[in-house]
Amino acid sequence: MLRIDVWSDIACPWCWVGKRKLEAALADFAHADEVEVEFHSFELDPSAPKSVDTSQLSYAERLARKYGTTKEEGQAMIDRMTSVGADNGVEMRFDRIRPGNTFDAHRLLHLAHERGLQSALKERFFQAYLGDGEPIGEVEALVCVASEVGLDAEEARAILAADAYAQDVRRDEATAASLGIRGVPYFVFGHKYGLSGAQPVETLLEVLDRAWSETQPVPELVGQGLTCGPDGCA
Amino acid sequence: MLRIDVWSDIACPWCWVGKRKLEAALADFAHADEVEVEFHSFELDPSAPKSVDTSQLSYAERLARKYGTTKEEGQAMIDRMTSVGADNGVEMRFDRIRPGNTFDAHRLLHLAHERGLQSALKERFFQAYLGDGEPIGEVEALVCVASEVGLDAEEARAILAADAYAQDVRRDEATAASLGIRGVPYFVFGHKYGLSGAQPVETLLEVLDRAWSETQPVPELVGQGLTCGPDGCA
Repeated sequence: MLRIDVWSDIACPWCWVGKRKLEAALADFAHADEVEVEFHSFELDPSAPKSVDTSQLSYAERLARKYGTTKEEGQAMIDRMTSVGADNGVEMRFDRIRPGNTFDAHRLLHLAHERGLQSALKERFFQAYLGDGEPIGEVEALVCVASEVGLDAEEARAILAADAYAQDVRRDEATAASLGIRGVPYFVFGHKYGLSGAQPVETLLEVLDRAWSETQPVPELVGQGLTCGPDGCA
Repeated sequence: MLRIDVWSDIACPWCWVGKRKLEAALADFAHADEVEVEFHSFELDPSAPKSVDTSQLSYAERLARKYGTTKEEGQAMIDRMTSVGADNGVEMRFDRIRPGNTFDAHRLLHLAHERGLQSALKERFFQAYLGDGEPIGEVEALVCVASEVGLDAEEARAILAADAYAQDVRRDEATAASLGIRGVPYFVFGHKYGLSGAQPVETLLEVLDRAWSETQPVPELVGQGLTCGPDGCA
């Protein structure tokens, strides 16, 4: 079994592209059915409000204001992300995006992990935020998306009303900080190799091969106690 | 995060003891909330029938016949297991045991893993088989135990009727074979250190410390691609 830990945010265009590239690499990887992928929480903007009035500024204007560029530079950034997204099979609609805080979405991703639905919910969140203009910091949008992938709507609502899984989000973020992760997506293969950013499929396959070859050695036997075997219990 | 992979069978007295010892060690381990335990399938007797007529032979007589010992030696083996079990808080009732095939129980343990209920179901299976004399190779007993830990009875029944999760059981067993595992329980810490058999809590804590200290290093960064960070998307 090879483990891949991925830190990412749902409000992160390259994270969506990175997820698609990882899936493309796994589709070409001979041992894909022995690979386990887990997504971890990372907030690009922990101080973001739950939702934002998008009627005053275009996304390009907001980018320009946030990063101190011109509106044209902001638009060029958007065009590039849209174009790379399209090359990877995802339609990003920056004209629709309704920015918000992603902390609650991350809490639901921890619930989804326990239910075996994390990858599905992650994908659906990207689509909702980057493609469909859903206000993904708001409870109703979150519950609706969660129920679409098979989570129980009432359970999701109860979790959002309480502080369930908040500690898990904070723990993921603390781990990211301890690993020196400052940008996402960030992939760790077999606890050993880090890849920062969306990567070409060929690069992912190289690291998959390398990490896989190192998961196979027999663990060092460091102790022997009472066992049962085909010939009885020692 | 430190991963512990445990191979075991439910028809295995030392596996129950080993699970309890691991739990005792984790209760004393400072980073227990960052440890992930997964149980893997191992059948001590893959050729066992689904159930066995227990009216003719006592468990001691069956042990004696199977392993070519005297009935007294069989009873001594039982007494030792019962006594070690009691020392570890579990009541083994060999007078009640109804031997059977454990393949289907292992299939349900894979379902339980997906639902976050694996440890609970594993514990309940040990209790059912080694303590309560449940015929754990039979569908009704399996469904009943599964529903007690919160799995859906109809889903469990449907899984048992089909061959769902059979491949997962076989894969676990193939991995065990490739790791040279011939007796259970068998613990692998952080993919690196193997412990065969039920071990004293002190030994488990030593290996936990050692494996933990080695999970912390920052992964080697082997590639850098497109990322988003607090200052925008590169």
